[in-house]
Amino acid sequence: MDGLLERTATIAHANAPRRPRIVIVGAGFGGLTAAMHLSRADAEIVVIDRRNHHLFQPLLYQVATAALSPADISATIRGVLNRQANAEVVFGEVTGVDTVGRAVRVGDRRIAYDQLVIATGARESYFGHDDWAAVTSSLKTIEDATDMRRRILIAFERAEGCGDPDERRRLLTFVIVGGGPTGVELAGALAELAMKSLMRDFRRIDPKTTRIILIEAGPRLLPAFPPHLSAVAEQALARLGVDVRTGALVSACDRCGAVIGSEHIESRTVIWAAGVAASPAAAWLGVVPGKGGRVPVSPDLTLPDHPEIFVIGDTAQVLGSDGNPLPGVAPVAKQQGAYVAKTIMRRLAAKAPPAPFRYHDLGNLATIGRKEAVVDLGWIKLSGRIAWLVWSLAHIYFLIGFRNRLAVAVDWLWSYVTYQRGARIITGSDDM
Amino acid sequence: MDGLLERTATIAHANAPRRPRIVIVGAGFGGLTAAMHLSRADAEIVVIDRRNHHLFQPLLYQVATAALSPADISATIRGVLNRQANAEVVFGEVTGVDTVGRAVRVGDRRIAYDQLVIATGARESYFGHDDWAAVTSSLKTIEDATDMRRRILIAFERAEGCGDPDERRRLLTFVIVGGGPTGVELAGALAELAMKSLMRDFRRIDPKTTRIILIEAGPRLLPAFPPHLSAVAEQALARLGVDVRTGALVSACDRCGAVIGSEHIESRTVIWAAGVAASPAAAWLGVVPGKGGRVPVSPDLTLPDHPEIFVIGDTAQVLGSDGNPLPGVAPVAKQQGAYVAKTIMRRLAAKAPPAPFRYHDLGNLATIGRKEAVVDLGWIKLSGRIAWLVWSLAHIYFLIGFRNRLAVAVDWLWSYVTYQRGARIITGSDDM
Repeated sequence: MDGLLERTATIAHANAPRRPRIVIVGAGFGGLTAAMHLSRADAEIVVIDRRNHHLFQPLLYQVATAALSPADISATIRGVLNRQANAEVVFGEVTGVDTVGRAVRVGDRRIAYDQLVIATGARESYFGHDDWAAVTSSLKTIEDATDMRRRILIAFERAEGCGDPDERRRLLTFVIVGGGPTGVELAGALAELAMKSLMRDFRRIDPKTTRIILIEAGPRLLPAFPPHLSAVAEQALARLGVDVRTGALVSACDRCGAVIGSEHIESRTVIWAAGVAASPAAAWLGVVPGKGGRVPVSPDLTLPDHPEIFVIGDTAQVLGSDGNPLPGVAPVAKQQGAYVAKTIMRRLAAKAPPAPFRYHDLGNLATIGRKEAVVDLGWIKLSGRIAWLVWSLAHIYFLIGFRNRLAVAVDWLWSYVTYQRGARIITGSDDM
Repeated sequence: MDGLLERTATIAHANAPRRPRIVIVGAGFGGLTAAMHLSRADAEIVVIDRRNHHLFQPLLYQVATAALSPADISATIRGVLNRQANAEVVFGEVTGVDTVGRAVRVGDRRIAYDQLVIATGARESYFGHDDWAAVTSSLKTIEDATDMRRRILIAFERAEGCGDPDERRRLLTFVIVGGGPTGVELAGALAELAMKSLMRDFRRIDPKTTRIILIEAGPRLLPAFPPHLSAVAEQALARLGVDVRTGALVSACDRCGAVIGSEHIESRTVIWAAGVAASPAAAWLGVVPGKGGRVPVSPDLTLPDHPEIFVIGDTAQVLGSDGNPLPGVAPVAKQQGAYVAKTIMRRLAAKAPPAPFRYHDLGNLATIGRKEAVVDLGWIKLSGRIAWLVWSLAHIYFLIGFRNRLAVAVDWLWSYVTYQRGARIITGSDDM
């Protein structure tokens, strides 16, 4: 331990004259974009993450439904930054911030900063029912996705080996709570897994009898999209056999299913895609969190009274031009990461700060299975095959920076042509 | 449970006239080959495995060293057999065999058989030191490989964050016990990971200072190869910086390293690639196991006094034409699977049995990193680049039947060109 402390002291004071240190906590879309945009800064950039990889979260549902492998949608943070000479990666979990002493706590270490960027993302929120976490599957990390994949595939295996028709029905019933993009895309991919990929695999059950129930509390799916695209998505899901219930509230969840209004839906697999809350950054910073645990920030994305601390992405509460909080999506985080990097560069050059952050909404995309997608770019709204193509190209394009886009393209092409799923292996314990 | 028993009863007696049932336990190279060669049998083929996937074990070391993803070298058993109408897959763990009542026990179920093929493979053996299992990493399953990958990658991460030079040296020292193909291939891949792929990734450690020590108890590496190819392999490993110790016996292993002769090598990662023992089939069958727990079988691969029970692959003890037991390699298992299928087909057609099983040795291949391999095809012995090419083509060829050979080819090509490793993500707990 002495060694660690000593080493930290070395980091903090050895270089004279010391270059300013920019510490970035979290290597998601926001943090990694900030780090990369600071590649020319005459500063020490320290990126801290408790994972060794950046995750392309928008495709996580494809890992959960056995279409892609974890490595297809991940890139090591060191790999992304290894040619950026001013950047260093620290693998560790931040436990607090000393805003007075200007240092981040990582286990036993303190890492001093001159400017700090907090981009720690969000985690699931169960709207006060934290006990639901233990009985549902969620989708934030690679482990969540491989765990969900295991549960889904084992449900089919158990149904095949099960003589009790009631239990078999419970095993083949999947409840997805939340009608945002994650819930919609999961429902579509799960329906195709059951109806197409697994079609010939079993002898005693018919995977086509699988019930997939998608629950949305609001009046329509994909509330961030224009209403007619929500309707397109709902129709496409209905064609895939998904039972969509809008305006439906979940009042209970357990290992045997969920209660929706007055109906108890018996199911061995309840998937939670409904709510997120910001990571505990507000507690680290000693501020009163805003909605969903987010940290309210000034228009320049700094913490009030702390111009040296930036908070971005899902962790920050920022109002858009319409007065509503910006959504927790990758483009917001990336634009904020780039904005913060620009601010820091200007400060290092003793230039005036840029104009307040403004989000450029480039549109929304969601896909439903392999034939349908909805795309809302503002100036154009698409659905059907052409939207699916736009969606695929956009995702392969945004995977740039990953070495994996070729593998993703190969997997998708293969999957599209054959309906086979390459990643359909079960690993880990077979407890459900 | 009643449902399960009832259902088993249905399996056993409902069809009249009932087709004979062939039960195959284990979907490795032997079992799966037997099942596929029985595709035209007028019989019910039941393949039982505790995994849902067949694993291409010879490439498992590439998952452990972050070059390939698990799904690249696995195929679901259902997927392989889904168009074989006479085949059914049961996902479950066999716990015993009732050789009198002719039934296999799978959990609470009994699955009756007319002919039984046991192909359950082998597991690690620690030569009486079972406590070493807890302190070493081994390589039999996908989980073993992802666990080994995690440990290796985390050792580098911890070394980077470590201020104590002694601990850093322990973290960057890797001991591999066993100089057979697995140990040799692991040592080569690990050396390339450290010397090439991770080269630019760290700021405080130099991955080139990594020590890899390969321990072999016998007088030379790759004892199944001709001596001059063993020498080629040893030289190639030395060029990659691997410290090869032949004639060296491990007398102790713990979390801090291993004792080799009188030397204590301090290391946080000891990898076990030394010994295997057959799965507990001998106990199921009530026979006295042979060497390494294997079941001694007659020249037609049946259990003495039980012509309806075949034992093949790593589980069986079969003598080769030179009087030595056949090695535990994929070609032996595959040829035995095909032989057993032929025997069963002839029995079903009331034909005379085939001649006793004879192994056709097609040669041995092993690779050391990405530039060197040794190939012994009997009539020709190769080393160097050309051997590496033969090795690559052979493995891509033998992956036929997997959908993944394209992905493997893409990954290898990418890895070859860039020295990057696509699967270098750490998931799961970061305890070592």
